[in-house]
Amino acid sequence: MTNRGNVGILGCGSAKPANGHMQASQLLTLCDKQFLIDCGEGVQTTLAHNGWRVARLDNIFISHLHGDHCFGLLGLLSTWGMLGRTRSISVFAQPDLEKLLRPLLNYFCSDMPYEVHFEHINPNHHEVVYSDRTLTVESLPLKHKVPCCGFLFREKQRLPHILPEAIERYGISIADIAKIKNGCDYTTSSGEVIPNAALTRPANKPVSYAYCSDTAYSEKIIPWIDGIDLLYHEATYLNENIDRAKRNMHSTAAQAATIAKMANVKQLIIGHYSSNIKDENQLLAEAQQVFPNTLLAREGQRYAF
Amino acid sequence: MTNRGNVGILGCGSAKPANGHMQASQLLTLCDKQFLIDCGEGVQTTLAHNGWRVARLDNIFISHLHGDHCFGLLGLLSTWGMLGRTRSISVFAQPDLEKLLRPLLNYFCSDMPYEVHFEHINPNHHEVVYSDRTLTVESLPLKHKVPCCGFLFREKQRLPHILPEAIERYGISIADIAKIKNGCDYTTSSGEVIPNAALTRPANKPVSYAYCSDTAYSEKIIPWIDGIDLLYHEATYLNENIDRAKRNMHSTAAQAATIAKMANVKQLIIGHYSSNIKDENQLLAEAQQVFPNTLLAREGQRYAF
Repeated sequence: MTNRGNVGILGCGSAKPANGHMQASQLLTLCDKQFLIDCGEGVQTTLAHNGWRVARLDNIFISHLHGDHCFGLLGLLSTWGMLGRTRSISVFAQPDLEKLLRPLLNYFCSDMPYEVHFEHINPNHHEVVYSDRTLTVESLPLKHKVPCCGFLFREKQRLPHILPEAIERYGISIADIAKIKNGCDYTTSSGEVIPNAALTRPANKPVSYAYCSDTAYSEKIIPWIDGIDLLYHEATYLNENIDRAKRNMHSTAAQAATIAKMANVKQLIIGHYSSNIKDENQLLAEAQQVFPNTLLAREGQRYAF
Repeated sequence: MTNRGNVGILGCGSAKPANGHMQASQLLTLCDKQFLIDCGEGVQTTLAHNGWRVARLDNIFISHLHGDHCFGLLGLLSTWGMLGRTRSISVFAQPDLEKLLRPLLNYFCSDMPYEVHFEHINPNHHEVVYSDRTLTVESLPLKHKVPCCGFLFREKQRLPHILPEAIERYGISIADIAKIKNGCDYTTSSGEVIPNAALTRPANKPVSYAYCSDTAYSEKIIPWIDGIDLLYHEATYLNENIDRAKRNMHSTAAQAATIAKMANVKQLIIGHYSSNIKDENQLLAEAQQVFPNTLLAREGQRYAF
């Protein structure tokens, strides 16, 4: 565990409220930025009750247009207006969401002090939907009753660190530091060429997190998430209900673990528990038989990676 | 306390989530029927987490179109569809709510197994908006930033009870029992006239409950709620913030209590607490100075009347 990112669970239940769970939502922190992934009903309240502040949250990603993944959005955006937010927010979602929500935003939040931008995504395409200086977000087409995509958050490879002792030894200027970080060797004032490898150490390997919900078992996603640090994969049912999982286009715990194993991910979190699951440790046990490094999602917990 | 009705608090916070409160919603039980009053975000989850079943709930009343009073409606209606509800539901609200919600219901709940009827009300009129065999609901125009009305639920006067010993003594038939309950005297087979008063005892006095939120201090409502059994009146602020209350068109605890006192109600519940109120007992103390029989609303509690 590199501990450079973490995901906080706001809701890990499925559509019907049960067993104390909230509907799907996660707060991801990566590269000193926050991202909200899905926004089931109650997110604004859960954020407040957890005391989770979202001062660095400027982007929201919605996997699909089922109510349990997006009905909390209107309330959250509305409350941010009341709290005096001024920074604009981007909502990455299928175009229908803007069509549906814009009239309500106009009506209920007519005096909103900030802008809501809807960034339209196509959940059937695997592509980079967001990119900034430090990370990218890719859509991961999933297999569900309605168009649906997961999201892969991946740090960009950082430039190597220049060794402080090299700077001191050779009196390297700031301009030259930038060149060296980009791969150049260094020539001293006496003409000696110091190879780049002697001046730098590689930056940490980028970390990565994927959110895959809601989805039937789909091996198609495996190459996209190969070797990532942390995978959240839905596990709505136990394998004894595999037919039901297939019918409802959800996954079982064993199926989630199989994906994690085949994709060589470092760690798996399962969630999106069916309201019929009384003891989620059964899901955990089932998943761990296939992929031992599995954890249960729990509301209010943060999982570092 | 006659204990013939009760109101369960689903949410008694105000718009900004804080201090563990949920947004406005109440589940009223009266005459063996249930009524939902307002539906802030999270009602479906709170109902489930409280274990409150709503098998007798066929009517929802929405006071006004601020998000904290209606953003839970879509999720609740949607989940009822998933749970297999087949009985239609009536939503009493201003016409705009249907205009706003119908497109979302059509999109998210296209396979809904029951009908949602919107019954349009005019919050500026004091009138009976619902009536059945056993009770009426009146709209109570309030004084808020947007058109808003409270609701007065009032049992109808029941027919008197016929005395079992009279039935036995005079051998009264079922047909005659109905006549006597409607006020007739009874003539025995020997021609003796038994006055109605000797055959009956009066039914209980009807009970009544009023919900008044959101509102600035408004004496206009006093005659409408005169002598009712239980009044819920918003008390967003302490009197030290009376200017803020006026500006935001809300009430202070002392103002709520003044209304209760002037209207001679039997009991008062206050709620809709500002997110800035850290100790609600201050609100209670302030209200009780004016109207001692005041209680604080608390989520998950039921208040009998």
